[in-house]
Amino acid sequence: MISWKNLDTLDSFRTLKNLNHTVSLKDVLADEKGAERVAAYSVPMGGGLNYNYAAKAVDEQVLSALSALAEEAQLTEKYEALLGGEVINTGEKRLVLHQLTRGQQAGAVMADGVNKRDFYVHEQQKVADFARKVHAGEITNARGEKFETVVQIGIGGSDLGPRAMYLALENWARQEGTFHMEAKFISNVDPDDAASVPKSTDVSKALFVLVSKSGTTLETLTNEAFVKNALQEKGLDPAKHMVAVTSETSPLAKSSDYLAAFFMDDYIGGRYSSTSCVGGAVLSLAFGPEVFERFLKGACEEDALAKNADLTKNPAMLDALIGVYERNVLGFPATAILPYSQALSRFPAHLQQLDMESNGKSVNRFGEKVSYPTGPVIFGEPGTNGQHSFYQLLHQGTDIVPLQFVGFRQNQTGTDVDIQGTTSQQKLCANVAAQIMAFACGKDDEDPNKSFAGERPSSIIVGDRLTPEALGALLAHFENKVMFQGFVWNVNSFDQEGVQLGKVLAKRVLAHDTDGALKAYSDLLNI
Amino acid sequence: MISWKNLDTLDSFRTLKNLNHTVSLKDVLADEKGAERVAAYSVPMGGGLNYNYAAKAVDEQVLSALSALAEEAQLTEKYEALLGGEVINTGEKRLVLHQLTRGQQAGAVMADGVNKRDFYVHEQQKVADFARKVHAGEITNARGEKFETVVQIGIGGSDLGPRAMYLALENWARQEGTFHMEAKFISNVDPDDAASVPKSTDVSKALFVLVSKSGTTLETLTNEAFVKNALQEKGLDPAKHMVAVTSETSPLAKSSDYLAAFFMDDYIGGRYSSTSCVGGAVLSLAFGPEVFERFLKGACEEDALAKNADLTKNPAMLDALIGVYERNVLGFPATAILPYSQALSRFPAHLQQLDMESNGKSVNRFGEKVSYPTGPVIFGEPGTNGQHSFYQLLHQGTDIVPLQFVGFRQNQTGTDVDIQGTTSQQKLCANVAAQIMAFACGKDDEDPNKSFAGERPSSIIVGDRLTPEALGALLAHFENKVMFQGFVWNVNSFDQEGVQLGKVLAKRVLAHDTDGALKAYSDLLNI
Repeated sequence: MISWKNLDTLDSFRTLKNLNHTVSLKDVLADEKGAERVAAYSVPMGGGLNYNYAAKAVDEQVLSALSALAEEAQLTEKYEALLGGEVINTGEKRLVLHQLTRGQQAGAVMADGVNKRDFYVHEQQKVADFARKVHAGEITNARGEKFETVVQIGIGGSDLGPRAMYLALENWARQEGTFHMEAKFISNVDPDDAASVPKSTDVSKALFVLVSKSGTTLETLTNEAFVKNALQEKGLDPAKHMVAVTSETSPLAKSSDYLAAFFMDDYIGGRYSSTSCVGGAVLSLAFGPEVFERFLKGACEEDALAKNADLTKNPAMLDALIGVYERNVLGFPATAILPYSQALSRFPAHLQQLDMESNGKSVNRFGEKVSYPTGPVIFGEPGTNGQHSFYQLLHQGTDIVPLQFVGFRQNQTGTDVDIQGTTSQQKLCANVAAQIMAFACGKDDEDPNKSFAGERPSSIIVGDRLTPEALGALLAHFENKVMFQGFVWNVNSFDQEGVQLGKVLAKRVLAHDTDGALKAYSDLLNI
Repeated sequence: MISWKNLDTLDSFRTLKNLNHTVSLKDVLADEKGAERVAAYSVPMGGGLNYNYAAKAVDEQVLSALSALAEEAQLTEKYEALLGGEVINTGEKRLVLHQLTRGQQAGAVMADGVNKRDFYVHEQQKVADFARKVHAGEITNARGEKFETVVQIGIGGSDLGPRAMYLALENWARQEGTFHMEAKFISNVDPDDAASVPKSTDVSKALFVLVSKSGTTLETLTNEAFVKNALQEKGLDPAKHMVAVTSETSPLAKSSDYLAAFFMDDYIGGRYSSTSCVGGAVLSLAFGPEVFERFLKGACEEDALAKNADLTKNPAMLDALIGVYERNVLGFPATAILPYSQALSRFPAHLQQLDMESNGKSVNRFGEKVSYPTGPVIFGEPGTNGQHSFYQLLHQGTDIVPLQFVGFRQNQTGTDVDIQGTTSQQKLCANVAAQIMAFACGKDDEDPNKSFAGERPSSIIVGDRLTPEALGALLAHFENKVMFQGFVWNVNSFDQEGVQLGKVLAKRVLAHDTDGALKAYSDLLNI
């Protein structure tokens, strides 16, 4: 029997808070026992990755308390319930089925009268068939020419995740010979965003993917109209250049305005939709459906690991609980995501949405105010770039910010250069290793301005190379981490009521239905 | 007589902390007095911008206390001292002269035996002459063909600022007919970053700008070698394709490896260098020297305003002190930068470096540990994109994050589309106005999950259009804000000792001079 309880009502959380025991990273990472710890504090992930938490401020005693918390909070039971099709998204009264887009981890899930796994597989196959026909020149523009560019029009989860995934695999696909079409993205309602794409693209050879679950997203429909204008100005028929990714009940689903429509449903939140056809269409068109399948395979492996009740064998649950410890016991307000891979340049922006939109909540699943901090601020940039930027504060600032590194032993393109006896990739990796230790252990100096207090905790996700499988696992890891943290905090990680008020007020501004300060701000902006 | 004192030793700060008076945004923005407040709480900035702080949790009483703090902390006197050439960067024993790249706000500053204003103007003119010759086809590649692309190789301040400024003006310049050359950027030591540029660029028509003040930056020299290889593989002479931006004493200064060398000096920190030839070379090549001059003009106007001792007429000082109030009295740990302009997509990343690297310090100017929080975490993304992402946490999360909006009444390209009776630009602006009010005033709802507590403070910088002058003012505003906050916190905002330890350890890893945990991490990453 699952019971949903606030974190501060759990005995195991009280035990954790009252441990009166802090782990010094300088101590535990010192000498040869430090080396042993690096080897031991490591958990295999999907896609050939490993989650290493040797530089987190935990030890057997803390881990044992976190394990008790995982058990009392029934984390794996709740995950199983989600996988089995329970209404986990209580606010919107919806099932939560994004894991089902990449595999079936529990029994069959029926909803709306259909087997949902079959539905998702069917849509993925529709996308794959369509992409193959585009690549083979069977689906072309009106002049019979092959499409060369795919442009995703979407915002939020229809933009950040797919864009981050595209950038993550672009160089890899070029190197592997599976690069079919360049992808571009239009998201912002700022007209200069939409305007820049037709200016830099041969739209006569562009295929647009319009992504809106409801078919009513203001930004997306506005940008669609923008693009249609651009096509018509060139004498092109927009209906021959557009596909829709939407729900079956949306106005876009059966419209003759689109070459094809691919479906998702209400059981997949925008920020969890990269493995549905929201990511599938653009990624299959760009890199081929086989690459997208490999991406799903990595995610599926990670989902399977997340079922493990043993905390030290469940990387997402472990990461989640260490995060809760840092947030609710140690009191750190933010987390930085630091991938040492330029290909992951927009991955922090995706995680920023995933995490902050899911767990940035003040009420529990029953709508009652909680009295403990929930989701932290998430930010980040790729290393080594960040080292020359905000790392100063991370090393010597007055707040401690936990760090999530990501690193790969090999680069994607295979191109490299040897300078002063080492390759760029070796320099990149040397910097990750150095930073972890610098943050953890610091350095004393006679000059306090050159001293480093250390005790800045970090973990690292390591792999051989950023492949589709590794990327899928990386994505699913954080989805599952966020889900587990939501379970611990007893919040609904799958709604986003916090975005509604702004929408309502913006409509009033546009309708000139305002007074007082709202009217004054509207005037200030000349609306 | 200037005295440098810790914030917590100032009487005015104690008064501020003990005000026992909090401003409710719901109250002060209600009804018609809310509209009056929006009109009144506004300060003209340079470049035609305005800083509006009506939605900040301040009133006459708080402002008066902040004004007393500004006076006791001698903020304008310290700024005048900086402008006059005092050694403000005490750690590195250096003058701080970046304002001098765009104007002379105080008397002549002599250093190293020269008038520094003359020196900066001279270098700017060298850049302008060079750019004009490139545009006129007087400086060409070996085949006599015009250069079409400029590629900046730099990291940290040699990358983030110039890149953000380039993106900010790219569409504007295309629209205004002053777009000369596309710019690209290589920064990360990740070889896949450098590899992607030669793959997508006709390097035979590319001019590379190598930026390194010391001439020894690891990433930059590595990427230079990478690019030289790529040029040589195509049978091109790298010396005909590269210019250097460096200090006169660096190994790059008089090398025959470069077509030309443009100089900065030790008195301009990397993160403050966008108005020196670090930004000047790439921006003048891309958009023409006249555009760069207009950019400097906007910055210069803002620098002049920052001399004003009247807090309500000094936008940078006001912004700085409100930030200190939020950080040190109200206790907010982070600040979000939210430009409603896709052109400013990388401006938050630049501010992240500017702010966090300058004021993420735990010791004061004398190397003594301070006992109050200094620089906050800075992050952000353009709106409306962010609304569909992390705004959930900003609206309903358990922490309050102060917000800095930026908005423009007109877009840059002039292209727009009318949907449902309003343009995209109107929708964009309507969303800013709506968000400010939603954050400030919230909304009660029977369903607590749909309630918004409000009282989330924000300010907005507003202008007609993002022009070079507006951009210059925007940049200088934040540089001056960060400077004033550094004065208040009594930290040295112009060094960055926190980046050194990582560099030292990375060298040890590359030399295989490691043991214990550092060796274990090196092994984990296969170095």
